[in-house]
Amino acid sequence: MRFGKLLMVMAMSIFYSWSAIAQSAVDVMPLPQEVKLNNGKYRLTSDLKLSVNGANEHLAAASGRFLRALDARTGLWFPQHFIETNTTDAAFPMQVSMGRAGKLELGEDESYSITITPEQIQVKAATDFGAMHAYATLLQLVESDGEGYYFPTMTIEDAPRFPWRGLMIDVARHFLPVDVIKRNLDGMAFVKMNVMHFHLSDNQGWRIESKKFPELTEKGSDGEFYTQAEIKDIVAYAAARGIRVMPEFDVPGHATAILAAFPEFGSDPSITEYQREVNAGIFDPTLDPTNEDLYPFLEELFGEMAALFPDAYFHIGGDENEGHHWTANADIQAFMKEHELKDNHELQAYFNVKVQAILEKNGKKMMGWEEIMEPAIPTTAVIHSWRGENEQMAPGESLVEAVQKGYPTVLSNGFYIDLLWKAEDHYLNRVMPLQLTKQEEKDLILGGEATMWSELVTPVTVDSRIWPRTAAIAERLWSATEVRDVRDMYRRLEIVSNQLEIVGLQHVKGREGIVRLLSGYGDTQPLWNLINVAAPLKNYTRNPGGTMYNSYFSFQKFADACVADAPDALAFRYLVEDYQAGKQGNAAEIQKYLELWKSNDAALQLVIEKNPVLKEVSDLSQRLAAVAQVGLDAMDKNVKKNGSWKKAAVQTLVAAREQGGRCELQVVDQIAALAGLEKKLSAAE
Amino acid sequence: MRFGKLLMVMAMSIFYSWSAIAQSAVDVMPLPQEVKLNNGKYRLTSDLKLSVNGANEHLAAASGRFLRALDARTGLWFPQHFIETNTTDAAFPMQVSMGRAGKLELGEDESYSITITPEQIQVKAATDFGAMHAYATLLQLVESDGEGYYFPTMTIEDAPRFPWRGLMIDVARHFLPVDVIKRNLDGMAFVKMNVMHFHLSDNQGWRIESKKFPELTEKGSDGEFYTQAEIKDIVAYAAARGIRVMPEFDVPGHATAILAAFPEFGSDPSITEYQREVNAGIFDPTLDPTNEDLYPFLEELFGEMAALFPDAYFHIGGDENEGHHWTANADIQAFMKEHELKDNHELQAYFNVKVQAILEKNGKKMMGWEEIMEPAIPTTAVIHSWRGENEQMAPGESLVEAVQKGYPTVLSNGFYIDLLWKAEDHYLNRVMPLQLTKQEEKDLILGGEATMWSELVTPVTVDSRIWPRTAAIAERLWSATEVRDVRDMYRRLEIVSNQLEIVGLQHVKGREGIVRLLSGYGDTQPLWNLINVAAPLKNYTRNPGGTMYNSYFSFQKFADACVADAPDALAFRYLVEDYQAGKQGNAAEIQKYLELWKSNDAALQLVIEKNPVLKEVSDLSQRLAAVAQVGLDAMDKNVKKNGSWKKAAVQTLVAAREQGGRCELQVVDQIAALAGLEKKLSAAE
Repeated sequence: MRFGKLLMVMAMSIFYSWSAIAQSAVDVMPLPQEVKLNNGKYRLTSDLKLSVNGANEHLAAASGRFLRALDARTGLWFPQHFIETNTTDAAFPMQVSMGRAGKLELGEDESYSITITPEQIQVKAATDFGAMHAYATLLQLVESDGEGYYFPTMTIEDAPRFPWRGLMIDVARHFLPVDVIKRNLDGMAFVKMNVMHFHLSDNQGWRIESKKFPELTEKGSDGEFYTQAEIKDIVAYAAARGIRVMPEFDVPGHATAILAAFPEFGSDPSITEYQREVNAGIFDPTLDPTNEDLYPFLEELFGEMAALFPDAYFHIGGDENEGHHWTANADIQAFMKEHELKDNHELQAYFNVKVQAILEKNGKKMMGWEEIMEPAIPTTAVIHSWRGENEQMAPGESLVEAVQKGYPTVLSNGFYIDLLWKAEDHYLNRVMPLQLTKQEEKDLILGGEATMWSELVTPVTVDSRIWPRTAAIAERLWSATEVRDVRDMYRRLEIVSNQLEIVGLQHVKGREGIVRLLSGYGDTQPLWNLINVAAPLKNYTRNPGGTMYNSYFSFQKFADACVADAPDALAFRYLVEDYQAGKQGNAAEIQKYLELWKSNDAALQLVIEKNPVLKEVSDLSQRLAAVAQVGLDAMDKNVKKNGSWKKAAVQTLVAAREQGGRCELQVVDQIAALAGLEKKLSAAE
Repeated sequence: MRFGKLLMVMAMSIFYSWSAIAQSAVDVMPLPQEVKLNNGKYRLTSDLKLSVNGANEHLAAASGRFLRALDARTGLWFPQHFIETNTTDAAFPMQVSMGRAGKLELGEDESYSITITPEQIQVKAATDFGAMHAYATLLQLVESDGEGYYFPTMTIEDAPRFPWRGLMIDVARHFLPVDVIKRNLDGMAFVKMNVMHFHLSDNQGWRIESKKFPELTEKGSDGEFYTQAEIKDIVAYAAARGIRVMPEFDVPGHATAILAAFPEFGSDPSITEYQREVNAGIFDPTLDPTNEDLYPFLEELFGEMAALFPDAYFHIGGDENEGHHWTANADIQAFMKEHELKDNHELQAYFNVKVQAILEKNGKKMMGWEEIMEPAIPTTAVIHSWRGENEQMAPGESLVEAVQKGYPTVLSNGFYIDLLWKAEDHYLNRVMPLQLTKQEEKDLILGGEATMWSELVTPVTVDSRIWPRTAAIAERLWSATEVRDVRDMYRRLEIVSNQLEIVGLQHVKGREGIVRLLSGYGDTQPLWNLINVAAPLKNYTRNPGGTMYNSYFSFQKFADACVADAPDALAFRYLVEDYQAGKQGNAAEIQKYLELWKSNDAALQLVIEKNPVLKEVSDLSQRLAAVAQVGLDAMDKNVKKNGSWKKAAVQTLVAAREQGGRCELQVVDQIAALAGLEKKLSAAE
């Protein structure tokens, strides 16, 4: 029995304020702002009928999807074909009312309330967006008992903390077909995210049809791109779910695909033909800001693109331009001197100002990665903060700088899901810098965006790279600051991960297919046992130099089946934590895991023998067995922990850090802790 | 060690003719016409490079896909970005040559040959279609040993038996998005099928954009349909894989969706507004052939549609029109009298002749379900034979009648995969009637089509209804008549099923998602144990009256996770067969299955308790346990099989026939056989 549910039984009505308790009252992600539980049940039967007050087309469709999803969840058939509208029957089982059609604009009202009594479900929202959020919440509230399915009775009042809750998807490095985008939009809607930032061009590809410049896809892609009809379809699909779609066309760097079509806009006159990249990395080709022909071209191109995306914002990239080709070009150097541009940053600002004018003509506000923040850029531009840690800036530094200079800003540093950090690392990321105290500055922090860069992902794997971790980021952006209990987050993340599968995401299925393939369609359990404690190498170290793989690789190897939060490692971590905090009862379960890992090697080696593709994890499997033995010894009173045992144990622990199949074991710290060897281990490393 | 492989080791070169052996020499489906195995290996390394002689765009793209698929299968990275063309290096590792670009026409040359030596792979084909078939064969030939992956050395000569090897997909009853169609086209290509028959309209929906008559989708669909751009995309995708796309627009019956848009073309003047159907069944609304305004409408509509599909054939349906509205309409009756049309069949023929003229104007040949075979119809039309068994005609009857009247014909009777028959039932279907002896008659038998009617399938489940069974049908249509060993078919079907997953089909993944959902994302094994011996009710009995479900139901219930060939039941069947044929060693494995089924009930009841959606299979699980006990008793010498035991056992067996969750147990006959109670069981039934 879970703590939250226990409370429900003891008291008729309990008000939860999130700062005070460890376990949430409801298993909803993101956690609503206010939940008041009552001690009752609204029973789900096929008599459930829905009436919507003031429904627009979007909410009518969403209401149908809600009933179908509830049907899938419960196996009940709600035979209502068409949603009833504007019922006057006060006793109608489910009543939804929306005030007006939401506008897909920053800051639109997304609030909603839900009241569930044993007789009725009532949803109220200012806009259809809020009502759709209520549906997502309701689908997460379904519970069951011996009698059937029900909603616990309660009231919920909810609204987002930040108005910009985004997911960036890079379709340049690996193209992602329309259905992949759509199912991820469904996932976003389920966790109440409202901005899909569409990274449509980069060195590796230009991914959208231009009727004015068909060369862009002919020469700047491998034939994989969205037609304009498909883009309209995606934008409409997102709009129907209350999600804005903001395009990004990265200039002046990250633009090799453009140069493949139009080499005349390059900055190195010796290059007459550019090839789009198939490797990962930062490359030198750059648009030439001193070429006056460039701006009419961009004006036509961005005008065409701007018309396809109704959103007010237009992202111009602007990142990671080192300007090597500018420095090497005497004409560009002369131009800079003439225009008193003292370095490449100022030259880029010169370029950005011109681009900004083009966007303004098209009614768009400019957004760019933080490198665009130069004095010449007006404060209508949105600064996208991304650097930190190993980059030139400390985390959040550009965020504070931006708001202090008066720019609205969106945070992605700490939300780079392609770095393959654990969910908790993203979850604990602070969006609102503590040093900001003035409300007008705070108001400039619009929110954040998870970023799915796609060098190492394909349509098969991208879902498992985005989900479920992005749900934790969605909660960070929606729920109260105080909602930050990592363990409760992980508990709910597992639940929401399951629900995201019903939504249509393939984050579970994709991995299962890879594991079956790698196991030669035989017994998959030995491989799963290793996968469940191994995580892909972080921070781009999986792909040294950006050339271990290129974009034509299949990405169906061991690392592609592993995830950032290896599930058994996570469970083991909390078992050990509690055990060390005195919960002796965990000993048996800990030993069971250790025994499993110890014995798994023999079983897995048999699988490896038949499937040469797995040879790369043969050592990793052996190291897991060895380190498991250290844990077993540590818990075995009959094993003497003398100096030589400790020395050997530390060696085994150090060896267990080594990567295998581009992954690392996530249980080493816990086993070191069991053995009391944390300090010796860290000293040895 | 498998028999085929054993032979390989013993002899350097063995010629297989399929009529003589039970186990095929290669695990390829459909089986090639001639395989000559040699005792060697071509080792796969990342040095493999491919050169194509005379490649067109389609084969160049297919060559890239081949390398990527080989990469996925082996984990090797073949870094060749662009296919080499027309190499003059005789030692180039893999050389493919095609004579000319294939035409997407009936009877095009699809033959190919493969020669694999330890040094080289050579593919020769008259057309790109043949070369692509060779790639599909090669992907199925990959094997591995301790050293790595390899192709066994051999030569293959292959060509299809029938020129028309089709899959009909009904997107009217349930719409299937573009990506679902595309992955099924990939599946078809993998088993060398070459016709996708696209059933685009029916009572339940009109599923293709008409620019001339937008009402068709506005009123005749639920908003789910293909745009013309999407249709062009699908047709091009199919063409790139050597697959013809033939559209079907079902008239004059099965046309309620058309009447929803244009009620004036209906035959019952009292109906002024038609609603498209959401249930399954045969319905009365019919176009009125006596309405002269109908033909200009059809001429415009079919003209628009014909232009979207380059294929020479155009299917007009024509099935299951009972003409009740014609009989009831005095004006129509008067018209028939006036035109000397003596019954509804002749009235339909009158209609078909006019439609045929419209198609002819558009350069199309007419195809229709067998009901169109009336004297007035010219023998350029293709007769699609479908009735038999419980229908008005005996199986094959219309096929023989058609060819004897000079019509070309395609067989679907026996290939109705939505009836949920076992694969073997489709596999043993005879395409070439024995009574046909004249070559000119035989030549009129063009081939066959599997038919996926979609009343009870969704994008989540459709793959598992089509695959892998359709691969057995593909083999029936491609391979020699003599290839008909059911057990070997099932052995290879499991292998090809795995490979179809790599191709991108979701037939495994879709079911797994449902099982996780039904099991509440807890332990799924108990539910799998029941699913693995249960098959959905056959012959449309799952959905009594066509109204137990409608098209808005979620179709994620127990029956949707079950398949026609329950895998454990299949394994059990062969264990018991061999055991009864004297293989005593099978006893332990048989008992293991029986023990599993006996003990599974307790575990599954715990899952059911937490997941009320599973209550519907509670009884089925108990009956499986009871019938397993009969089997255990039968094999236990200590249990006396006296009269009262037999009586009780027969009762248990009879009870075990009862459906649960719209499924039936597939192990009852085998357990009856173990108990020697087959006759008593059938007497009791």
